[in-house]
Amino acid sequence: MTVEIICVGTELLLGSIVNTNAAYLAEQCAGLGLSCYYQSVVGDNRERLAELIKTAAARSDILLISGGLGPTQDDLTKETVAEAFGLSLTEDENTRRRIAQYFEKRGMELTDNNWKQAQVPEGCLVLDNENGTAPGMIVKSGERHIVLMPGPPGELCPMFESKVRPYLEKLEPGVILSQTVKIYGVSESLVETKIEDLLAGQKNPTIAPYARLGEVHLRVTAKAADEKEAKKLIKPVVRELKARFGGDVYSTDADTTLEKSVVDLLLAANLTVTTAESCTGGMLASRLINVAGISEIYKSGYVTYSNKAKRHMLGVKKTTLTKYGAVSEKVAGEMAKGAALFTKSDVAVAVTGIAGPDGGTKEKPVGLVYISCQVCGKLTVKEYRFSGERRKIRESATACALMQLRRCLLEYCGTKTFGKDKG
Amino acid sequence: MTVEIICVGTELLLGSIVNTNAAYLAEQCAGLGLSCYYQSVVGDNRERLAELIKTAAARSDILLISGGLGPTQDDLTKETVAEAFGLSLTEDENTRRRIAQYFEKRGMELTDNNWKQAQVPEGCLVLDNENGTAPGMIVKSGERHIVLMPGPPGELCPMFESKVRPYLEKLEPGVILSQTVKIYGVSESLVETKIEDLLAGQKNPTIAPYARLGEVHLRVTAKAADEKEAKKLIKPVVRELKARFGGDVYSTDADTTLEKSVVDLLLAANLTVTTAESCTGGMLASRLINVAGISEIYKSGYVTYSNKAKRHMLGVKKTTLTKYGAVSEKVAGEMAKGAALFTKSDVAVAVTGIAGPDGGTKEKPVGLVYISCQVCGKLTVKEYRFSGERRKIRESATACALMQLRRCLLEYCGTKTFGKDKG
Repeated sequence: MTVEIICVGTELLLGSIVNTNAAYLAEQCAGLGLSCYYQSVVGDNRERLAELIKTAAARSDILLISGGLGPTQDDLTKETVAEAFGLSLTEDENTRRRIAQYFEKRGMELTDNNWKQAQVPEGCLVLDNENGTAPGMIVKSGERHIVLMPGPPGELCPMFESKVRPYLEKLEPGVILSQTVKIYGVSESLVETKIEDLLAGQKNPTIAPYARLGEVHLRVTAKAADEKEAKKLIKPVVRELKARFGGDVYSTDADTTLEKSVVDLLLAANLTVTTAESCTGGMLASRLINVAGISEIYKSGYVTYSNKAKRHMLGVKKTTLTKYGAVSEKVAGEMAKGAALFTKSDVAVAVTGIAGPDGGTKEKPVGLVYISCQVCGKLTVKEYRFSGERRKIRESATACALMQLRRCLLEYCGTKTFGKDKG
Repeated sequence: MTVEIICVGTELLLGSIVNTNAAYLAEQCAGLGLSCYYQSVVGDNRERLAELIKTAAARSDILLISGGLGPTQDDLTKETVAEAFGLSLTEDENTRRRIAQYFEKRGMELTDNNWKQAQVPEGCLVLDNENGTAPGMIVKSGERHIVLMPGPPGELCPMFESKVRPYLEKLEPGVILSQTVKIYGVSESLVETKIEDLLAGQKNPTIAPYARLGEVHLRVTAKAADEKEAKKLIKPVVRELKARFGGDVYSTDADTTLEKSVVDLLLAANLTVTTAESCTGGMLASRLINVAGISEIYKSGYVTYSNKAKRHMLGVKKTTLTKYGAVSEKVAGEMAKGAALFTKSDVAVAVTGIAGPDGGTKEKPVGLVYISCQVCGKLTVKEYRFSGERRKIRESATACALMQLRRCLLEYCGTKTFGKDKG
């Protein structure tokens, strides 16, 4: 079956709030094996809403409509839906009781327009709202199911969980399951070329590439009678993708970020890590520290923005700075060495570069970045050239530092045996 | 004129990502005085996209379309738009050159499908992409303007700023001018209550509130025959808003971020600054270093995640750590003092707290954070309690650190006279 998501609200059209309801409902529907082809946002305007509902009902089996169920004059979703399907509004006694209790419980004054929320389209299924006054409603018209939900996420999400999903689950058997293969350091187009044959004429499971900062995520989605069957469909595809991209795949778990995959490697090998950052100025440390449990292996790090700081905090030689300049392979190397030495860490990552907008020269343009990784004494320094504005360059450098560190760790783990005793 | 926003992407229909582009574009259009009545999301599907474009072109003057400009098979926005308006695709030499340079610069492997991105609808206006390979395009068909932009926000936003907005500004006679009053540390609902009377029945200029992390931005937009006239309309409203929110207003300039407002104060007072971070782990340093020109006043900073690091790098007393614990007012204070001392900085900001998910106790729950600012010897330490997941807590702490620093700097500047001689 097909589902269509309609979010009603002028604040969405003004961009005052981000439409998280649409993302939430879309993800829920995907999990239910419902195909969603359209999402729409429309204001609290009877004519345009009516037109949209007519269009949607003509092309989709299920309409999920959120917002516009409030007590004020400009809330008219319910009225418009009733009109569109030739239904009159009647008062729902239970809802009237619920609203009265809601206000009484909070000692709030109840105004006449609150009773507007007890009005529902005749013959609809009323969904009690445990977190607000506006009830949800399901109108059945021919083969169409029109679901009305309140706009506030704090009311919509619990109502969907407890009442709408069970209703939808009964409409269609089967589940959709997804697994994501996360690849880094390979351009989206190159990824695509490498799996052209898999993408060509794919049916079930499907592979969808999503580009992320320096990464490509391949989402493998299967539709099947049950979870076990869906997993069986996904497994060989994921295996094939891992075979094709090898070490560039850093995870097949949707919740594992690049930084987490790096931290997991460090924890497994029981290696402590530190950072020394110039142009990224704390961004690398911050991404590592996003990972809960990092405290076991990350004790301290440096932001060494000036040459003096590089010398005093990391022991970079004055001669190296004068001879090669702060943005150089040599300085990057000495930064990592010094950081590892002074913090007594097994692993050190250092970044030095020109983030711009100023400070670039013909020989050393804005975007030139050197990243060094020292893993148990073995130093690797790489040169990168990034483009974009200051923030973009810093974000790219941070992502590349994580990628480079991961590669160095894999190499180290390949040569050494894992997990020297903890503590 | 009316504008319609169309976001193309299966990942949006699957709910894999939240549609921040729609909110961004909607906010920008509101600022330009363009009326947006519809937002739509459709997948990478030629037939459905074509149908949507037809409908949109029939009811809106301007179509803003984002996504589906990538090099892969499932990217077909450009092709569909060209077909819908009876245009053929031709290669844009400049874009081909740009793409070649882009890959060369990164030493990345260029594959044939990359050249697909150099194909553009005949006679369209090509918008260079400074942050990626996919160019933007503006197709003019009769009275309609169809704007195509890449999906990644890091590419879309800068392109809109530098190329699309100037184009849209020229479309309507007269000018729309906006000024944003940026408020921090006040809840959105409280802000709205304080200006209820101004919001009620407003016409020209209008005030639109936008909630940001720990901030509320009030955008005042005026429509007038010329800029002078528009400014005259905006001025008294901005003055009134500044009067109502006083010191909580940190800027009335759209491009001034909270970190920039802090750096500007530091530069004006010619004060050097350093950071010492535990739970925020580099996030604060990173935000400061987002500001170009920071190198003049920010030389170095510390990430002291472990107790040992707090002692060895910042000279926090062992007794203080054992007696009060790492997350305490006292330790936060000693961290700032030590950082200022060891880096010889006029100003130091330190953060220590429990970001979770583990490590919380009944006395010291997850979300408890102490932030200290030392400005020329004067120390201020504050306690905060944040909620949400690890990242959210760290982001809130970083924002509050900037706010607290700003307040301390204003206080200092109030007492001292500005700008001791530079250098």
